[in-house]
Amino acid sequence: MSETFARARSSETTRVVTFEGGARSVRDDRVAGEEPLEIRLRAGGRSKTIAITMRTPGHDFELAAGFLFAEGVIAGLDDLREMTYCLDGSVGADQQYNIVNVDLVRRELPDLVALERHFTTTSACGICGRASLEALRERGVPSVTSALTLAPEIISGLPSALRERQRLFASTGGLHAAALFDARGTLLIVREDVGRHNAFDKLIGAALLERPLPLADGIVLVSGRASYELVQKTIAAGVPVLCAVSAPSSLAVTLAEDFGVTLAGFVRGDRFNVYAHDERIA
Amino acid sequence: MSETFARARSSETTRVVTFEGGARSVRDDRVAGEEPLEIRLRAGGRSKTIAITMRTPGHDFELAAGFLFAEGVIAGLDDLREMTYCLDGSVGADQQYNIVNVDLVRRELPDLVALERHFTTTSACGICGRASLEALRERGVPSVTSALTLAPEIISGLPSALRERQRLFASTGGLHAAALFDARGTLLIVREDVGRHNAFDKLIGAALLERPLPLADGIVLVSGRASYELVQKTIAAGVPVLCAVSAPSSLAVTLAEDFGVTLAGFVRGDRFNVYAHDERIA
Repeated sequence: MSETFARARSSETTRVVTFEGGARSVRDDRVAGEEPLEIRLRAGGRSKTIAITMRTPGHDFELAAGFLFAEGVIAGLDDLREMTYCLDGSVGADQQYNIVNVDLVRRELPDLVALERHFTTTSACGICGRASLEALRERGVPSVTSALTLAPEIISGLPSALRERQRLFASTGGLHAAALFDARGTLLIVREDVGRHNAFDKLIGAALLERPLPLADGIVLVSGRASYELVQKTIAAGVPVLCAVSAPSSLAVTLAEDFGVTLAGFVRGDRFNVYAHDERIA
Repeated sequence: MSETFARARSSETTRVVTFEGGARSVRDDRVAGEEPLEIRLRAGGRSKTIAITMRTPGHDFELAAGFLFAEGVIAGLDDLREMTYCLDGSVGADQQYNIVNVDLVRRELPDLVALERHFTTTSACGICGRASLEALRERGVPSVTSALTLAPEIISGLPSALRERQRLFASTGGLHAAALFDARGTLLIVREDVGRHNAFDKLIGAALLERPLPLADGIVLVSGRASYELVQKTIAAGVPVLCAVSAPSSLAVTLAEDFGVTLAGFVRGDRFNVYAHDERIA
């Protein structure tokens, strides 16, 4: 698997000078890898770069699939023919495994002018709250209607389950995590990245690619804050409950409220806050 | 000052359901504001949107000035004629104070095709490490050559000084912070935002706008991780020391090493790590 080459760069060794109580020592330490990933769409013999994101190498096909799914470019796995690394001669040695070609089943590239505008206004740069709501509705993204209900203890148990699984975090301390749990709070899958949106995209991509995971009865936990973009991706994936170890933003709360997502923040110890749709916690 | 209207939205009140040890309670709480800011450049009677970013309202002129400075669009305050909010009739009521017009002294807009490519590849989406180094060098960005030296105790004292000043963080828990200190570790200025890059841009913009701050002998502390983008902005601002409460990425270390920036991470208690140019810590 060529993914192995990318994963080998998920962290790098660097020389570190540690000062502690005035004393100086030198050692080697690991830091999280950060490299660009270019996602190229291909259909009908044409090709188009649709995104370039700084990411931690590894799980790159999941990242591409999850990103395209969350942005509405693909509706599911059936829209994908193949994903491969671009390894032709024009790619420099240091950029090997930093370009993913996504071959679509459809015969023509999607309307790229519209897409470019879409990415400019929603993913890369952001958009106002009201327009963001309208954009999701225009794409026909439905509200999340899952009848899932959870005991509070399920929510409180998520962070410790995540910590146990965060091998990479333990070695570099520099990665965001996104984790999918089932309705009983069992951890199904974790993905990590220097970028929080990338960690989320990898998670959703893994759910698409590896097996049919129960997104509609699932819970996602993110290691940091809950921004409107993460709520947007949660809605697109049809996940009913998003939990964050830290705080949500105002627009995250508004989006979650309007699209039926239960949004919990400050999930720490036996305490957490619910900012939208607390009716699922009983 | 029209900035007052924007700052009033830096946090919002929301209804929160708190679960603690299984007990449920309802109260009002504050969450960090998150709204779009559109930055429009104007020169010679023409106008062009150069960036849209999701930010916490407030200090918007600083954000615009700092962003343009860090990206090399302006070389300093002398290039700016005026900054104003766009408040004409076409702007909806909910988007008031979300568009900043930046009037340049020059008679023509900068080469926008080149700029768009620039933003696509460095700011909004990222770029490969080598190309990023080349882009900085092509723009003529010099390495940081400050002869500043610091005792380790100065570095260790920064986070507590920042915490004391983080009023907003205390109320919402959802904001990134960037702070500028002088060479003796005295806190000069703090800016906060839901976006870490925005907090940094606001800080640099404040240094440009409010008074001549000693960037060349200054220390910047950021509340989270050190990504390559923050190191890039540090280099552009000519700041010799960047400290982060959390971890750096691999590309952040490479950039700092190549452009003369002292990069410290995991600054906690009396301990911290230095990943590049530790010769300034003595």
